[in-house]
Amino acid sequence: MNIKRIFGSFVPTNPIISNMSNASHTTMYSIEQLQETIEQEIEIRSEKLSKLAPKDLYLPVNYALQMGGKRLRPVLLLMAYNLFEKNVSKVLPAAIAIEVFHNFTLLHDDIMDKAEVRRNRPTVHTRFGDNSAILSGDGMSFLSYQYLMECTSPCLPDVLKLFTQTALEVCEGQQYDMDFETRLDVSEDEYLEMIRLKTAVLLACSLKAGAVLANAPRQQADWLYDFGINLGLAFQLQDDLLDTFGDQDTFGKKIGGDIVANKKTFLLIKALENAGADKKTKLLHWIEKENFCPEEKINAVTTIYNQFNIKELAEKKVDFYFSKAMDILENLETENSRKQPLLQLASKMLTRKH
Amino acid sequence: MNIKRIFGSFVPTNPIISNMSNASHTTMYSIEQLQETIEQEIEIRSEKLSKLAPKDLYLPVNYALQMGGKRLRPVLLLMAYNLFEKNVSKVLPAAIAIEVFHNFTLLHDDIMDKAEVRRNRPTVHTRFGDNSAILSGDGMSFLSYQYLMECTSPCLPDVLKLFTQTALEVCEGQQYDMDFETRLDVSEDEYLEMIRLKTAVLLACSLKAGAVLANAPRQQADWLYDFGINLGLAFQLQDDLLDTFGDQDTFGKKIGGDIVANKKTFLLIKALENAGADKKTKLLHWIEKENFCPEEKINAVTTIYNQFNIKELAEKKVDFYFSKAMDILENLETENSRKQPLLQLASKMLTRKH
Repeated sequence: MNIKRIFGSFVPTNPIISNMSNASHTTMYSIEQLQETIEQEIEIRSEKLSKLAPKDLYLPVNYALQMGGKRLRPVLLLMAYNLFEKNVSKVLPAAIAIEVFHNFTLLHDDIMDKAEVRRNRPTVHTRFGDNSAILSGDGMSFLSYQYLMECTSPCLPDVLKLFTQTALEVCEGQQYDMDFETRLDVSEDEYLEMIRLKTAVLLACSLKAGAVLANAPRQQADWLYDFGINLGLAFQLQDDLLDTFGDQDTFGKKIGGDIVANKKTFLLIKALENAGADKKTKLLHWIEKENFCPEEKINAVTTIYNQFNIKELAEKKVDFYFSKAMDILENLETENSRKQPLLQLASKMLTRKH
Repeated sequence: MNIKRIFGSFVPTNPIISNMSNASHTTMYSIEQLQETIEQEIEIRSEKLSKLAPKDLYLPVNYALQMGGKRLRPVLLLMAYNLFEKNVSKVLPAAIAIEVFHNFTLLHDDIMDKAEVRRNRPTVHTRFGDNSAILSGDGMSFLSYQYLMECTSPCLPDVLKLFTQTALEVCEGQQYDMDFETRLDVSEDEYLEMIRLKTAVLLACSLKAGAVLANAPRQQADWLYDFGINLGLAFQLQDDLLDTFGDQDTFGKKIGGDIVANKKTFLLIKALENAGADKKTKLLHWIEKENFCPEEKINAVTTIYNQFNIKELAEKKVDFYFSKAMDILENLETENSRKQPLLQLASKMLTRKH
């Protein structure tokens, strides 16, 4: 998959992209500028945290924050703010709050999933123990509120409510994901609702929070939320695709992990739905098998996926949500030139590690 | 220990208690009335939670909330509010928020401490598994913010900041408590700081939040905070005392649990500090021993405590902090008659299960 495929169907008619070359950059920040700003701010805050006691509470927090990552959520918040206002540094604490919250969810999810490695380093619970990961995770969730409340906007109460609602929804998404582990009858709709809650709402919240803090018209803020939901769904579906069909060298993780773990991805759900009795039995056989050679299982399941064009089905779904996101961005009532950084980030998110 | 001992030193000169019989009850609520109000509100909210999906996320939340308990923290919040304002139902959501938060800490602490029983029932992680206890606990921490934000007071931002600061401090207290498990050189000051963070600040926060929501003068709110800190320290020290010297029939938990688990309580810290070389060796022998008869260990350690008057030392410390709390309450600038419910609750907290 490449950027041409993603943009193929609507680039010609999309005025955002057509206008890109005319964009004014005077008060706008690029992805890289914002990422750099965020990294610097995280560095400053980590330095402060490292001086707090008890050390054992704050050390895992810093370990998690300094693991890196793309800082997508804080970048989205700053970009949404930057659509309406110039001085992004005013909402930097809110951007960091979202990143700290996101990392808190990773800490706790990694315990629940017994994940040992993240971004090529031992996960927090592997490095510091389960108890530390639970408690430092809790600490991070409260730190995120503390950072968020540093913003002095009169709209802060609205943002706090949105943030809290989102946090609860992320917990709901994680619960659905765990529930799905023991089920074989997960429907496409249930799956989409799970990834909406687990992944999309936090991206959407980041965008809306940025807009609300910029005092944008409520309608614009809501559209940015919807843009985030659709982008998030496309992003997660793309992740499912890459886990099976990605390129080992550029994907970062081992290809086929989802298949080995029987993860109820869009691919598996559609395969179980579309396969006839014979192939379904074969799939279930692999799902239930306890001792197997991973390569053999990956090959067998991928072969069934290919027989039912699951890859193309998933790609279509990615395109569907990405197109919806683009349509919403197009309709947003700000100059098209101002939308350029968001457009670039969205396309980058959907073409990573292909 | 009985109420006379606690009040003995200062009852005669304490105008609050002298005036008790003249107290006007017209706009004030008793402990029992407030507890009843809180139970009803928890019932209503549990009913609502039971209708939310995913069920597996909200079931453990309700299980925890319906375990009962004395509802000390929400009662304190309502009482502090009731010192200045009549209509306590206005801040009921904030009171429930604090109770939900407190139960969240119990959920996660019980995982970390591998505690299997609480209030004579299996703990949440024992009943539903560690993952559920982690995730439903997380959900509860966000629910507590959601409930808190139902209050419409213009002082809500102050309360949110206080609450968040307190939540972080409770995490710090739990971390110190875990750190102490592997240490034998914990000082009295370190211990007091640990229980201040782990126990006292949430009682103090409840009181101050009630006062702030009632728009009380800041000085009065701060005094109520200090009252809560001293009450909380006395309360936790009393708990240490009861764990070793309480009456098995009325204490509820098994006597000697702290000794068996080598918990670094005020008693053990003072014993290690005061014992001569010979007795210290004996104490350390019991602490390091891996296979032992619990009764034998409890008897041996209690005997050493008795040889160094540790019980009396601890009782003095309880009295010291309780007296400080009473002095602060006395100086609070509201009619003495209005302080009666708080005074009653404080004395009840310090005479429970003796």
